[in-house]
Amino acid sequence: MKSAFNFYIPTNIVFGPGRIKELASMELPGKKALIVTTSGKSVIKFGYLDMVKDALKAHGIESVVFNKILPNPTLDHVMEGAQVARDNNCDFVIGLGGGSPIDSAKSIAIMVNNPGNYWDYIAAGTGKGKPVTEPVLPLVAIPTTAGTGTEADPWTVITNMETQEKIGFGLVPETFPVISIVDPELMLSIPAHLTAYQGMDAFFHAAEGYLATCSQPASDHFALGSIELITKFLPRAVKDGSDLEARTALAWASTQSGLVESTSSCISQHSMEHALSAFDPSIPHGAGLIMLSIPYFTFMAEKCPERFPAMAKAMGVNVDALPENERPMAFITALAGLIKSIDCDGLNINDFKLEKSQCAALADNAMTAMSFLFDLDPYKMTKEECVAIFEKAFEA
Amino acid sequence: MKSAFNFYIPTNIVFGPGRIKELASMELPGKKALIVTTSGKSVIKFGYLDMVKDALKAHGIESVVFNKILPNPTLDHVMEGAQVARDNNCDFVIGLGGGSPIDSAKSIAIMVNNPGNYWDYIAAGTGKGKPVTEPVLPLVAIPTTAGTGTEADPWTVITNMETQEKIGFGLVPETFPVISIVDPELMLSIPAHLTAYQGMDAFFHAAEGYLATCSQPASDHFALGSIELITKFLPRAVKDGSDLEARTALAWASTQSGLVESTSSCISQHSMEHALSAFDPSIPHGAGLIMLSIPYFTFMAEKCPERFPAMAKAMGVNVDALPENERPMAFITALAGLIKSIDCDGLNINDFKLEKSQCAALADNAMTAMSFLFDLDPYKMTKEECVAIFEKAFEA
Repeated sequence: MKSAFNFYIPTNIVFGPGRIKELASMELPGKKALIVTTSGKSVIKFGYLDMVKDALKAHGIESVVFNKILPNPTLDHVMEGAQVARDNNCDFVIGLGGGSPIDSAKSIAIMVNNPGNYWDYIAAGTGKGKPVTEPVLPLVAIPTTAGTGTEADPWTVITNMETQEKIGFGLVPETFPVISIVDPELMLSIPAHLTAYQGMDAFFHAAEGYLATCSQPASDHFALGSIELITKFLPRAVKDGSDLEARTALAWASTQSGLVESTSSCISQHSMEHALSAFDPSIPHGAGLIMLSIPYFTFMAEKCPERFPAMAKAMGVNVDALPENERPMAFITALAGLIKSIDCDGLNINDFKLEKSQCAALADNAMTAMSFLFDLDPYKMTKEECVAIFEKAFEA
Repeated sequence: MKSAFNFYIPTNIVFGPGRIKELASMELPGKKALIVTTSGKSVIKFGYLDMVKDALKAHGIESVVFNKILPNPTLDHVMEGAQVARDNNCDFVIGLGGGSPIDSAKSIAIMVNNPGNYWDYIAAGTGKGKPVTEPVLPLVAIPTTAGTGTEADPWTVITNMETQEKIGFGLVPETFPVISIVDPELMLSIPAHLTAYQGMDAFFHAAEGYLATCSQPASDHFALGSIELITKFLPRAVKDGSDLEARTALAWASTQSGLVESTSSCISQHSMEHALSAFDPSIPHGAGLIMLSIPYFTFMAEKCPERFPAMAKAMGVNVDALPENERPMAFITALAGLIKSIDCDGLNINDFKLEKSQCAALADNAMTAMSFLFDLDPYKMTKEECVAIFEKAFEA
């Protein structure tokens, strides 16, 4: 067992179908909310935004909506959202939607009281790594997707369009949501392909967190638990989006993978995907991960097979019946099967605005902008190995 | 999967050998501490109290020691400790030692600013169930035993000597420790028999929490994780108290069982043990549980066998190789084996100041003072069944 670690997840997670209603009566961390949400139509179309606004109103709490957030949330919108919060004297922030608005809400919460540019505080890539000195506004997270797990971790990933960097940041405990309401009923409307991408994002948070050198006993439990739930329920939710039992299991799996992010960490696959979607922001994060995953995990299973059999087992493989040397790769076979069962085996990196000739540049970006995740890999890869994994993705 | 639950554990758990040293530099929730500790000699003899006082001094933080806490902590000492804190203007409380001083520290933290008697606020038995209206002082927990898990939950169990009641209480989030420093090096000095009792207390927090109707996916992971670690490492630590690897695993298992207390709950075995030690305070809590456990879990396994095979599996039993009808009882066999391997198979309830004729009174006490735990049982037992379990313990 790992002998030293910290376990600290101060978020009050309120989980269950229909629990969004409790927003109208629970103790909230302020009197006037900036509601940060997506520029897409879904939160309006399905009534989620009205639900939140009405619940706040019933509670006697004012709110202002900032609804410009893109699928890959940008630095500019963080700065703009913080200005809106300042202009309206908001004293807390609500992130409503997928990972993008919730991550943006965290970054906006930092910038409302802190001077200068958000990138001044970023501790990697071209960020200046300045300390955050002024109070961060408290945050309530209301996810409407099951993927990022950001409702259960302090991390936020923002893209700087100018420098083509997509970098994670966070402060413990300041950017942990104070409250997260995880209501699977808000996830019934997610289309099949996004259900698949988001579910696999949560899957990889778990798998990477299980392999990370900073894993701990609790993160191992969370990770294997999420891998098991996603393998079992993601194909069901992709096939029938109205399956509330599957949506509920996936909502918890995603949140639980967020707990993995809080007690362990992603590793380099996430840095590599961030390079992909920094180069082509039209790539959904989960789709990028899926396209990298077979070459990536095959490489890792060859270099450090130790932890792969347990992941294969969590996916339902009867690993004990296999010869010992086949057990690690059983995970890769099961992963390929899962990807096929959610209709994602047709995803091809060559269909995006990317070329195989860019692999060295992608590796450079990944190893610069989010180099710290490479430090947590169970095997320390070279630049050449990183390039080769990207190349294999183009050859798939 | 359970579809609705709350997950909220705001304690910052700092875990690992030697990490007590960090007390001298970490951010603490006050400027003057009341250190609540045991009336026993161990915290002085092994230097733990000086370690804590010196670290606080190095940090510029004053401290006052209240060291009267008994193995079954009493209402009188809660009231006295709160007075000491008031007299000395302490603004936070440190619980140092086993579960008794840490539980007392929680109850003292409540009573420093709240009027009247602690029992006024107790919501069961002869308690008056008044609401706690004034601020609870922040708490730091430093366990020197691996058993109660109180460092990772908001609960405190105090005995009212006058009414012979031993009742749990707690406020979420107020009586969660703000910080818990879990340093297995502070546990190397625990004698073998106490190591065994405390380890089995943690084991039963896990087993009961796994069976409780309020269990949730995370508590299941924590519970099975603790059952596995304790089965593997408790015999080692009982045999060789200086085995730091075993002490570390047990320290985490105990804290993890505290996480079970925060995400699920004990069930009626704990109410029944509290009756035993309310009647005879010389019974160590863990010993009381051990003496009840075989009749108790045998009864539960007969009434609701569903969750027992997973617990047997966590104990290392190859349940898949057993006929299905033998799997639940495999847990009982493994439990008896564990109790034997830690030299506790000689414990006999008849050796204490208790008689078989008191079984009806014991059942009355258990079902009155802590009736709420019976409500969480997977099978709702009658008074007669409760009496019969006590009687079986006398017949063992």
